[in-house]
Amino acid sequence: MATVKLWTDEEVASDPRVKAIFDDIRAVRGSDFVNRFWRGLANQPAVLERTWEQLKLVMMSPGSLDPLTRELIYIAVSTANGCGYCVHSHTVAARAKGMTDEQHGELLSVIAMASQTNALVTALQIPIDPEFQIA
Amino acid sequence: MATVKLWTDEEVASDPRVKAIFDDIRAVRGSDFVNRFWRGLANQPAVLERTWEQLKLVMMSPGSLDPLTRELIYIAVSTANGCGYCVHSHTVAARAKGMTDEQHGELLSVIAMASQTNALVTALQIPIDPEFQIA
Amino acid sequence: MATVKLWTDEEVASDPRVKAIFDDIRAVRGSDFVNRFWRGLANQPAVLERTWEQLKLVMMSPGSLDPLTRELIYIAVSTANGCGYCVHSHTVAARAKGMTDEQHGELLSVIAMASQTNALVTALQIPIDPEFQIA
Amino acid sequence: MATVKLWTDEEVASDPRVKAIFDDIRAVRGSDFVNRFWRGLANQPAVLERTWEQLKLVMMSPGSLDPLTRELIYIAVSTANGCGYCVHSHTVAARAKGMTDEQHGELLSVIAMASQTNALVTALQIPIDPEFQIA
Amino acid sequence: MATVKLWTDEEVASDPRVKAIFDDIRAVRGSDFVNRFWRGLANQPAVLERTWEQLKLVMMSPGSLDPLTRELIYIAVSTANGCGYCVHSHTVAARAKGMTDEQHGELLSVIAMASQTNALVTALQIPIDPEFQIA
Amino acid sequence: MATVKLWTDEEVASDPRVKAIFDDIRAVRGSDFVNRFWRGLANQPAVLERTWEQLKLVMMSPGSLDPLTRELIYIAVSTANGCGYCVHSHTVAARAKGMTDEQHGELLSVIAMASQTNALVTALQIPIDPEFQIA
Repeated sequence: MATVKLWTDEEVASDPRVKAIFDDIRAVRGSDFVNRFWRGLANQPAVLERTWEQLKLVMMSPGSLDPLTRELIYIAVSTANGCGYCVHSHTVAARAKGMTDEQHGELLSVIAMASQTNALVTALQIPIDPEFQIA
Repeated sequence: MATVKLWTDEEVASDPRVKAIFDDIRAVRGSDFVNRFWRGLANQPAVLERTWEQLKLVMMSPGSLDPLTRELIYIAVSTANGCGYCVHSHTVAARAKGMTDEQHGELLSVIAMASQTNALVTALQIPIDPEFQIA
Repeated sequence: MATVKLWTDEEVASDPRVKAIFDDIRAVRGSDFVNRFWRGLANQPAVLERTWEQLKLVMMSPGSLDPLTRELIYIAVSTANGCGYCVHSHTVAARAKGMTDEQHGELLSVIAMASQTNALVTALQIPIDPEFQIA
Repeated sequence: MATVKLWTDEEVASDPRVKAIFDDIRAVRGSDFVNRFWRGLANQPAVLERTWEQLKLVMMSPGSLDPLTRELIYIAVSTANGCGYCVHSHTVAARAKGMTDEQHGELLSVIAMASQTNALVTALQIPIDPEFQIA
Repeated sequence: MATVKLWTDEEVASDPRVKAIFDDIRAVRGSDFVNRFWRGLANQPAVLERTWEQLKLVMMSPGSLDPLTRELIYIAVSTANGCGYCVHSHTVAARAKGMTDEQHGELLSVIAMASQTNALVTALQIPIDPEFQIA
Repeated sequence: MATVKLWTDEEVASDPRVKAIFDDIRAVRGSDFVNRFWRGLANQPAVLERTWEQLKLVMMSPGSLDPLTRELIYIAVSTANGCGYCVHSHTVAARAKGMTDEQHGELLSVIAMASQTNALVTALQIPIDPEFQIA
C-alpha cells in the first residue's frame, strides 16, 4: 500500500494534464504498461511532469554513456539508498536493455566492494590524500 | 586525521606481511604512490590483505564490464553512501581510466536523478508492480 | 512480521508498567487505536517509556514550530532514512493535522530537490564557503 | 578541495551559457555572492541550468508552504543524508529567512526524535498497520 | 519477490560449484536449513563463494570478540543501513547465540542513542576536537 | 566550523542551566575536558539536558552489555550513518574502555562484512524467509 492513491487508467483519462504525460510515457516506451511510480506521482501533476521530463533527458537522450551503463549506475545508487522498488524497476529495465547475468554479477560485486570500502574508510576516518587534489 | 595511525613507508618496510601487500599494490598499479586508505588498513594486516585481494578481483579482473564502467558504479555507490574520500579516490581513478568531462556530467545527472526518484518512491511508499516479478 | 512479539491489548493489560503507558497514549491522542510501533516497543518497557515521553515533549509541547510543520520534518527525515513504516505513520499524522494535497506535493518537491542536490554536492565534494562561517 | 574545478568569476564571464545562469542567481537572490556549489556545477552547464531552474521552482515559487518551512525540510533531508555542505548552506538560508534559535532547537529535536524512532522501527521490523492503508 | 531466481535444492544439486558451498553451509551450521540469501547469491557462484568464505572468516573464526558481540554489531550496521532482511536474519542468529531480551533492549537503546546523536552532530556540523587526534 | 556557536567555558559559566550539565559531565567522566558536541548543544539547553540524561542512562547504567560492547555498537551505527565526528569520539571512548587493536580489527571486519551483505541483499531484494518469523 502506498501513502497516496495509485491512479487507475480511468482516473488518468479524466485529467487532461496527467493523461498527456501518461500518453507520452506509453509512446516513448512503446508499451501500454505504466508502472505504479507514475500512478502515485499522478496525485501531483507538477511533480509528475517535472520528473518524467527530467528522466527522459537524463536516461534517454543521446550522450557518452550508453543506456545500459546509465541503468547500472541507477541500480547502484538505488541499492545504496535502500530503495527496493527502484532496484526492482531498474533491474527490469537493465535486463530489457541487454544486461547479462555475467554483467549483473559484476555489478553486484562492485556494489558490494564499494559498500565495504566505504564503511572501512568511514570507520578509519582517512583524510584525503593531497595527491587527489584538483589543481 | 584518522582514527588510526597511517603507516609511513618506513613502518611498512619493517613488517614483512604489510610490505608484501604494498609491493603488490605498487606492482599492479605501476606506480610508487600508495594512498592513505592502505596506510590506515596496514594496522590490520588481515583486513588489508583481504580487501586488496578482493579489490584486485572485482575491479581489475577481465569481465563483461569495462574498467571505467566499474569505476562509475563505484563513484555512484560512494556518493550515495556519503564517503567523501572514496568519491575523491575513485573520481581520480575514473579520470585515469579515460572518463571525459561529458561522461562525468552524465554520471552526475544519473546519480542526481536516481537520488531524487529514490526519495519520491520512499515518500510515496509505492508497492512493487506484479509485472516486475521474476517468474 | 516483526523481530519481536507485538503485544495484544490483553498482554498489555497484564503488565502494569506497559499498561500505564498505553493508557497515556490513548488519553493523549484521544483514540483507542495504538499502532504497532508501541506494541513492539512493549517488549522493552524502559525504551517504550523513554520514547513515548520524548515523543510527547518533542512533537506535542507548545513551541515555535506548529504541529504540522513538525510532522513534515518527521516525514522528511524518515524518507531520507528509508523508514517505510515511519513514512506511513507520519503521513497519516500529517493529514490528521491538516496537511493538504498541495502541501504534500510541495513537501515531496523539497525532499526530491534536497536529495538531488545532496548527491551532487557529495559527488563534487564542494568545500564549505568561508561565507557560511559562524563568527 | 572538490573533485572538479570551482569556477572563478572570470571563468564564468568567459562562458555565455554559464554567465547567464550566474547573472540570474545574482538577480534572483539580490546578492553578488554565488556560493561554491554553483561554481562546481559550472563544469556541467546542462546540470547547472536544470538544477537552478528546479531550485527556483521548488524553493521560491508561491505555494502553500512558506519559504522558511521549505528550508527546515531541506535541512532535515540534508542532515539525514549526511551532506555537511548542504546543512551549512541551508542553515544560513533558514536564518536569512527568519529562523530563530528557538525554532532551530525544535528542528534539531524533531530530527533527533525521528532518527531515533526510524532506527527503532527498523531494528524491530514493525509491519505497517492496516489502519494506515489508503482506501 | 527477489530480482533474481531463488535456487531450490534441486537446482543447487545440479550445479557442482554451488552444491559444494551449500554443503559447506549446512556442515558448518549443523543444520539443513539454508536461507534465501544464499539461494539468491547462487545465481553468481563467484560472489556466493567469496561471500561465504569471508563470512566464515569474519563471523566464526576465533578472536577477541565473542560470536554474540559480532552479531550485535551486525544488527547495528544492518539497522543503520535499513536492510530489513539482514536485521531479521541476524536477530535470529543473535538469539541462537544466546542474546537475552535484556541484551536486545540494551542493543536497541544504544542504536537509538547513536542514531540520535549522529543526527545532532551532523545538523550542528561539529568540528572534530583536537583532543581526538591520533598522535 | 559548526552551524552554531561552540560555547567557551566562560559562556558556560554564565548560564546556570548549561553550567549544571557541564558540571555533571565533568563529574561523571572524572575529567575536565568537555568535547565540542556538548559545546554546540549548549545553544539549546533543553536538547542538551535530554541528550546528556539519555546518554548517561544508555551508555553508563549497569546492564547486561558491558561498556565496551556498547561503544563498539555505537561506532558501528555511527560508521553506517557516516558521522565522522561520532566515529572519532567513540573510537577514543572505546580505547579508553580497553579496546585492543585486535578487537578494533574485528570490529572493522564485521562492519565491512555487514555493509557488503546489506548491499547484496538490497540489490537482490531477498524476501524474508518464513523460518525467521516470530511465532
